[in-house]
Amino acid sequence: MIEFTGFRWVPEYIQGFVKDLPLRWACEEAGLAYKMRLLDFADLHTDEYRRLHPFEQVPAMIDGPLELFETGSILLHLAEKAPWVLQGGGLPRTRTWVFAALTSVEPYVAAYFNTPNASVEDLMTMLTRLNKWMKGRQYLESTFSVGDIMMAFVLRNLVEPGLLGEFPDLEAYHRRCEERPAFRRAYSAHMDSFEGKNV
Amino acid sequence: MIEFTGFRWVPEYIQGFVKDLPLRWACEEAGLAYKMRLLDFADLHTDEYRRLHPFEQVPAMIDGPLELFETGSILLHLAEKAPWVLQGGGLPRTRTWVFAALTSVEPYVAAYFNTPNASVEDLMTMLTRLNKWMKGRQYLESTFSVGDIMMAFVLRNLVEPGLLGEFPDLEAYHRRCEERPAFRRAYSAHMDSFEGKNV
Repeated sequence: MIEFTGFRWVPEYIQGFVKDLPLRWACEEAGLAYKMRLLDFADLHTDEYRRLHPFEQVPAMIDGPLELFETGSILLHLAEKAPWVLQGGGLPRTRTWVFAALTSVEPYVAAYFNTPNASVEDLMTMLTRLNKWMKGRQYLESTFSVGDIMMAFVLRNLVEPGLLGEFPDLEAYHRRCEERPAFRRAYSAHMDSFEGKNV
Repeated sequence: MIEFTGFRWVPEYIQGFVKDLPLRWACEEAGLAYKMRLLDFADLHTDEYRRLHPFEQVPAMIDGPLELFETGSILLHLAEKAPWVLQGGGLPRTRTWVFAALTSVEPYVAAYFNTPNASVEDLMTMLTRLNKWMKGRQYLESTFSVGDIMMAFVLRNLVEPGLLGEFPDLEAYHRRCEERPAFRRAYSAHMDSFEGKNV
């Protein structure tokens, strides 16, 4: 069975934002069974864990003999296991959107949280561009993919600060993704695990 | 023939750091023919270009009917066209390192250039971890891959500020990558194009 690493516990404001959530979501979409290996922060900085994840972070994945790290890379591995569910416009376009979420959007989201005043303008520029792309589209490509999982997960950070309100197409897209039953199941399992349930 | 978009001209301090360079490098490694579509900055912000690259950046790629953007995604497409040259430890591990370069290292490099004092410590932490991984290794995996191309390209930014000097394994690795004849050819072509040569 596929195994992911995650945290046994994180502060409340980070719950719902740790990157095992998109992996759980992909498994729920595809009907892939998975189990979690829950870790304490100190467990990451050991020689044993470093062999699995050189940057000492979560998530990492073990699938038989294959060990991977990096959320985007693991999502693409899952997309190859269940292509009919997880590869919207085919693998090359799906790959493109996973990278886009992590390198064309997330860095601007992170910068906004670090230095809001200095970074809000760049973030708005990128969201304006993505909003244009979403006009008339239900998902990033013709059908749902792990690209949508990654993008919706990155956009999640912008809901509470109210930053999606200016972008109606993007806001509707984000809501559409999170209303999927697979997301709701993954989210519940993710949140429950911090209380020691369903692990 | 594969076509990449790039800039007709950029200021001197950016020459050698635009992301068509890793794509040219991969093509040189694999013996894949490519041509460039060189653009002015204003060309990116048009409806026509937005259909190719929603975030209005370079590079994008056209390969027959397939249009892609995001450097990492394009590199992985090239790695599928020439797997024997460009997929060091197999596609899943190669993918992992392309993501690692762009999401576990590059954001810290970018933050360092934006706010050196506030960001140097985080960057050093990530470089220390990567340096540990490189101990006793020639490349990120057993043989060279597009993961090395992406990582070496990101590390390039740290040579002139002298930040690799503290990490001998990483510095030797970066030098090893850039000494490859394919890099030298790609670099020359990249630099020449800004002078209107070899385009």
